Amino acid sequence: MRLVGVGVGPGDPELVTVKAVRVLREADVVLVPVMATGEPGRAEAVVRAHTEKAERVVFALNDRGGVTERRANAWDAAARRVVDAFRDGARTVAFATIGDPNVYSTFTYLAQAVRGREPGTAVETVPGVTAMQDLAARSGTVLTEGAESLSLLPLTGGADGLRAALESHDTVVAYKFGRVAEEVLAAVRKAGRLGDAVYGARLGLPGEDIRPAAEIDGPVPYLSTLIVPGRRMTLGGKLLKERP
Amino acid sequence: MRLVGVGVGPGDPELVTVKAVRVLREADVVLVPVMATGEPGRAEAVVRAHTEKAERVVFALNDRGGVTERRANAWDAAARRVVDAFRDGARTVAFATIGDPNVYSTFTYLAQAVRGREPGTAVETVPGVTAMQDLAARSGTVLTEGAESLSLLPLTGGADGLRAALESHDTVVAYKFGRVAEEVLAAVRKAGRLGDAVYGARLGLPGEDIRPAAEIDGPVPYLSTLIVPGRRMTLGGKLLKERP
Repeated sequence: MRLVGVGVGPGDPELVTVKAVRVLREADVVLVPVMATGEPGRAEAVVRAHTEKAERVVFALNDRGGVTERRANAWDAAARRVVDAFRDGARTVAFATIGDPNVYSTFTYLAQAVRGREPGTAVETVPGVTAMQDLAARSGTVLTEGAESLSLLPLTGGADGLRAALESHDTVVAYKFGRVAEEVLAAVRKAGRLGDAVYGARLGLPGEDIRPAAEIDGPVPYLSTLIVPGRRMTLGGKLLKERP
Repeated sequence: MRLVGVGVGPGDPELVTVKAVRVLREADVVLVPVMATGEPGRAEAVVRAHTEKAERVVFALNDRGGVTERRANAWDAAARRVVDAFRDGARTVAFATIGDPNVYSTFTYLAQAVRGREPGTAVETVPGVTAMQDLAARSGTVLTEGAESLSLLPLTGGADGLRAALESHDTVVAYKFGRVAEEVLAAVRKAGRLGDAVYGARLGLPGEDIRPAAEIDGPVPYLSTLIVPGRRMTLGGKLLKERP
């Protein structure tokens, strides 16, 4: 019994790895998470570009909090589906997850729930391109070079961590800041770095929105990405010039 | 005239994206960096698994410093090769880079050098899976979940930044610490987190070395990766338990 968390990248069906395509095609069962609303998820659209056998499982796709019990029940139902597939003879069940299965993915919880029910399950993952990398490529932003450090922060709880990261790290990337966008932008502006920052949402999908962070006005979706790039261009440890 | 930095992933030819394969095959010229020693680089091996047209350019593949002028000359020579290809009629030149072209990649310098010579060049990048993600998948390590933060640090200069990151971030990933490995491991041990940390080198290649960081003895290669995972498992913002 083998459960594989397959990272299918940020949304563009071409930004999936050759290995992910092979694992999805070879798996006996391919599960894709959908929201309780029933609307198809991003992972499903990518999977369907490469194989016909996607089967939906209702899943909580984010961690806004406040629905803890309902979400735990959803993971448990998905885990039951995996275990049922094993009992029906499936040797490999693949679970497609947007981005990378080891970076803010619900696969972590699914794997834990499946192992709780079927401790002999072998769990594997196939890495995938993350939203941060896709936004960097699409916007022409260098994430890090030379000796630069990078801080990646989910900001569900507010901008405190962001303020500290802007002081301690060269490049700062923020996820999940939809609910505190105003506070986040104010913190980046106060650090004097709003002019360099780039914002993106729905990357590679219809309605893709990429722009300088300074041009954000109004609310932004929960699944948004903000890159505040480092400012140094170095060569062999020697500062060449400030970026950009 | 179009210069595309193509991320070919950490070394395993299957961990390249469908888009990267297409761009490499469609490009008029595909350049792969090799070291001055002439030994084939990792990027070349991945490219040759998908297309025959790889052409070597001698390049400085890391930033150990101390050879600043020679490295600048190497980038300049590579940039001349790109510009010559354009003058010979190439519309698209692809430059293959291990990992992701926007994450600690020499492509940043090449693009700058090409634009210096040929300002009208359109520069694009195709994202790729990074070593950090590959090590997480191969070792069964969750990089981040829920509200966890991640700090990614090159440690060419020593472990000071690491000590601060271990205090301020949940997960800490260190690159390029080969020369200061002893100091790095001592800092992780002092933070009480050596038992959770995982080490990897030559990922997906012959001689792959993945093990608990506590089992490192002796020198490690320059291009090594260390993951010190966060310790929280949360559900909707509520702490479920400490990891692992």
